[in-house]
Amino acid sequence: MANRIYNFSAGPAVLPEEVLLEAQEFLFSLPGVGMSILEISHRSKAFDKIILEAEQELRSLLNISDNYAVLFLQGGASLQFSMVPLNLMPNKKADYIITGSWSKKALKEAKRVGAINVAATTEAENFKRIPMQNELKLDPSADYVHFTSNNTIYGTEWQTEPQTGDVPLVCDASSDILSKKIDVNKYGLIYAGAQKNMGPSGVTLVIIRKDLAERASDELHTMLNYKIHIENKSLYNTPNTFGIYVINLVAKWLKKHGGLDAMYKVNKQKAEVLYKCIDESGGFYKGHAEKDSRSLMNITFRMPTEELEKKLIADATAAGFDGLKGHRSVGGLRASIYNAFPLKGVQDLAGFMKDFQAKHADEKVAAK
Amino acid sequence: MANRIYNFSAGPAVLPEEVLLEAQEFLFSLPGVGMSILEISHRSKAFDKIILEAEQELRSLLNISDNYAVLFLQGGASLQFSMVPLNLMPNKKADYIITGSWSKKALKEAKRVGAINVAATTEAENFKRIPMQNELKLDPSADYVHFTSNNTIYGTEWQTEPQTGDVPLVCDASSDILSKKIDVNKYGLIYAGAQKNMGPSGVTLVIIRKDLAERASDELHTMLNYKIHIENKSLYNTPNTFGIYVINLVAKWLKKHGGLDAMYKVNKQKAEVLYKCIDESGGFYKGHAEKDSRSLMNITFRMPTEELEKKLIADATAAGFDGLKGHRSVGGLRASIYNAFPLKGVQDLAGFMKDFQAKHADEKVAAK
Repeated sequence: MANRIYNFSAGPAVLPEEVLLEAQEFLFSLPGVGMSILEISHRSKAFDKIILEAEQELRSLLNISDNYAVLFLQGGASLQFSMVPLNLMPNKKADYIITGSWSKKALKEAKRVGAINVAATTEAENFKRIPMQNELKLDPSADYVHFTSNNTIYGTEWQTEPQTGDVPLVCDASSDILSKKIDVNKYGLIYAGAQKNMGPSGVTLVIIRKDLAERASDELHTMLNYKIHIENKSLYNTPNTFGIYVINLVAKWLKKHGGLDAMYKVNKQKAEVLYKCIDESGGFYKGHAEKDSRSLMNITFRMPTEELEKKLIADATAAGFDGLKGHRSVGGLRASIYNAFPLKGVQDLAGFMKDFQAKHADEKVAAK
Repeated sequence: MANRIYNFSAGPAVLPEEVLLEAQEFLFSLPGVGMSILEISHRSKAFDKIILEAEQELRSLLNISDNYAVLFLQGGASLQFSMVPLNLMPNKKADYIITGSWSKKALKEAKRVGAINVAATTEAENFKRIPMQNELKLDPSADYVHFTSNNTIYGTEWQTEPQTGDVPLVCDASSDILSKKIDVNKYGLIYAGAQKNMGPSGVTLVIIRKDLAERASDELHTMLNYKIHIENKSLYNTPNTFGIYVINLVAKWLKKHGGLDAMYKVNKQKAEVLYKCIDESGGFYKGHAEKDSRSLMNITFRMPTEELEKKLIADATAAGFDGLKGHRSVGGLRASIYNAFPLKGVQDLAGFMKDFQAKHADEKVAAK
């Protein structure tokens, strides 16, 4: 087996080795088909089976009812930042909860469509926490409320959804979808780029309550209209066939390994290993997120000096821990540990961090 | 090597076996990277190298000058049907030449943006030919002229570009890009879904003269704005990384096999084998396209009865010739023979068609 390293990238990110090996085995020729998955028509029986299975596996994992459509689109969460307001805002008003860079990008596009109320923002605190329910200034006549369930850059995550009464809840779940069970019935629309927990980049999953799709005007451009994609079961035009194929493999891998409850248990265990290492470091490692807003997917932390941060990143990279550099908005380090990231990799990193601290504790004092 | 069949699909379509084998070999772990191409960050050095190489290979193959940007977007040609008019129509007027179903779809979206002049259409003749230059009713004050260079459904192809003077020419080249040399300098914008001659589905190539991108209003949604994608070198958001990787492999394969002149020579040879078989069948096989409008990529033809057509398709499928059923708009059969389709497969199909005719010539008489 070829040599592989620990990949802490925020996305595209690590995928299950079993999935990679299966995709590799059949890349030249799908069994019973005689063509590569890269070559088969999106209108063929072979692909029909794949896209239907992918949908059914996701419906089963997330317990999605028939009131919802499951779509495989293109353009990433970034195109959803526009499609959501263009489709779902008949009264040209919506609430946005701002918890990081991605929420802000979603807000920017929504403002092109209507009057947006920022229901809450923690920007003044550099997004180190998720707002509390009683901080949300929600408008009961809003067309929807938008939030970002996990913030990759800041390492924060909603522990439960915001309560929005009868106003439909719209969620960018790009970085924590399939990492735990959620009650889809609480949502009007969930969207997620595939490239963290689901598969390769280039596919966007959209789960939409079918009645909400009726809000769209027929004047909307065809490719931006959810109703068209629902009517055509994601095949209005040629979708990312290979991406959907891999999502199907990942969903089957999740089912085989116990589904989302089992995944959540392991994800908690993995995150606890790193948060414990941070909390017990006596301040050598300092988490960016407040404890009750901590993400299970992205662990962000700083160190006493930027020099030490650079040295840790360099030493870690040399030791086979890749992708630990934090986003410039927070600085420091970020370990992204999605579903497919192995527990052993997290334990190895924690061991590495403890050794590094033992070696460089003096430099901390010197820096103070 | 796993068993493979002849794939005459109109797209996604056959890819070079060398490319499939290389992608397969390294799918688990890219040499020197230690991660799968499906897992690496689009901001990583490894991916930077891949996307830069893909762009350079395409620039070299198509001789694209620095006045043009080369973009790898998502959403297929279908999203370009909207992006083109949203970006390039400041005066809200454009000319569209209608040569098939895809031109009509492009027209439909353009009409949402401005007043569109249909400069010519061959719909009354079921799109069996490309209009002549002197049939084009062009408006010299149009923002651009749009045409579809090859029509997959009808099997017609422009032999040379329409002459539009100073009005920028915009081309949907999804189904014949890279099949022959073109003079990019004659175009304002060329777009093409990757899934026929370039790679897997889920990537759209856009070649755009940089000054035209300046036409876009800043009010345009970010993901729909060419200027943003140019400024960010296709990395404003996460692109289809795997798709771009395969495009790079396909471009290198093209270069290795002599570039576009060599490819055109083989493409002509392949198409001639089938057109000869049709023309020498004494009317048993009847081409849909008029001779001087024939496509080198998609060969469309009918037979004396629908029963014979069904039988040929069934027998051919059983013999390992897949995807020959014609589109419902034309009926009959369609053989799509893009760059990667082997000459031997075309020769084998011609042999099969001659045998079929010999066996069933009587039924033709019976049907008359």
